[in-house]
Amino acid sequence: MDTEYRRTARTTPTRYRERARYDRETVHQILDESTICHLGYLSAGRPVVLPTTHARLGETLYLHGSTGSGPLLAAAAAPSGLPVCVTVTLVDGLVLARAAMHHSVNFRSVVVLGDARVVDDGAEKLRALAGLLDHLAPGRAADCRPPNPRELAATGVLALDLVEVSAKVRTGDPVDDPEDCALPHWAGVVPVSVTAGAPVPAGDLASGTPMPTYLRERRR
Amino acid sequence: MDTEYRRTARTTPTRYRERARYDRETVHQILDESTICHLGYLSAGRPVVLPTTHARLGETLYLHGSTGSGPLLAAAAAPSGLPVCVTVTLVDGLVLARAAMHHSVNFRSVVVLGDARVVDDGAEKLRALAGLLDHLAPGRAADCRPPNPRELAATGVLALDLVEVSAKVRTGDPVDDPEDCALPHWAGVVPVSVTAGAPVPAGDLASGTPMPTYLRERRR
Repeated sequence: MDTEYRRTARTTPTRYRERARYDRETVHQILDESTICHLGYLSAGRPVVLPTTHARLGETLYLHGSTGSGPLLAAAAAPSGLPVCVTVTLVDGLVLARAAMHHSVNFRSVVVLGDARVVDDGAEKLRALAGLLDHLAPGRAADCRPPNPRELAATGVLALDLVEVSAKVRTGDPVDDPEDCALPHWAGVVPVSVTAGAPVPAGDLASGTPMPTYLRERRR
Repeated sequence: MDTEYRRTARTTPTRYRERARYDRETVHQILDESTICHLGYLSAGRPVVLPTTHARLGETLYLHGSTGSGPLLAAAAAPSGLPVCVTVTLVDGLVLARAAMHHSVNFRSVVVLGDARVVDDGAEKLRALAGLLDHLAPGRAADCRPPNPRELAATGVLALDLVEVSAKVRTGDPVDDPEDCALPHWAGVVPVSVTAGAPVPAGDLASGTPMPTYLRERRR
């Protein structure tokens, strides 16, 4: 398998081309680090963007939802696949330049274009749902009550193959025009990070229930 | 003005209706707290979702981009407005239930539907661009070199009135079925937060340039 996704007209940016990345490693890291993605699809001909969790298993991205939810209903009505765009964005910093128009954000994002299919195969569906749990907390899928037939029937899983994919990455300092660098304004980066705090037991958790290792050792 | 946005069929969820919020205060707080939004629009009939910064000024959401970027080109070709969906999501926690299918995420999100218009009025455009800077760091617009005519000509601003708007908020513990509460699995919430670190001066910043008050006092 190529180490890079093949670029297409749609995944080639018109500006800031130096920020584009196509290597699978970068794309996978961004997808895996973000808790959520934003799913874009068409509803009655108009764009709708919804936040949802995701899981990457190899070269497939899985999403899930109630079979009565908008995206799953739309997918069920599109037997040849639902046109979607799934975007994941991590914000790493606020970039303050001397010039107003050179302000920016340090970020890492991935855009996946394609036609999502409803997962019909029972084994693939179970793998995807386990992947969604392990995406939230690696190891969790093996440490909870598995879905029962009623729950499985009420839940739909979408699969989107990672074929038309690109990442964008901006890092580092502001880039001001040379003639602006003598201006008196402060310039630099405010780092932004996402952190996970100490897990808080549910109010109805039996006292003495140990916190699992995969949570104690978790770092984000 | 009503304290709530008027709900429509498109902003009334089919599930978890108790999570929906329509009050302007909640919507404004979520929009203002998030550094970025995700903009959904149609490109050649397919959905595209891009991350971008935003600013809310009163009841209008402003976005900006190069006049050569996808969304601005699409908006320029849609004189009666570009159908968009702008979504903002803040992740507050990972919700681990005893049952696989009751896992969730604590989050606050806003979905804005509407037709975005290109801002032609020069004064409104300047206000919007200042708003985008102050959204990154309140006070910044007054402390940088303003846009010059060339930069203004190369930049487009989109305005989206906050009319068809809804928020969704999930908070608190996992909700397990009663018969699952005796299972031995740990349950609870892993809090997630976004923090801004100490500002890092640009490598080419003249030594002795003071860090502005609005950055020193910034907390996220």
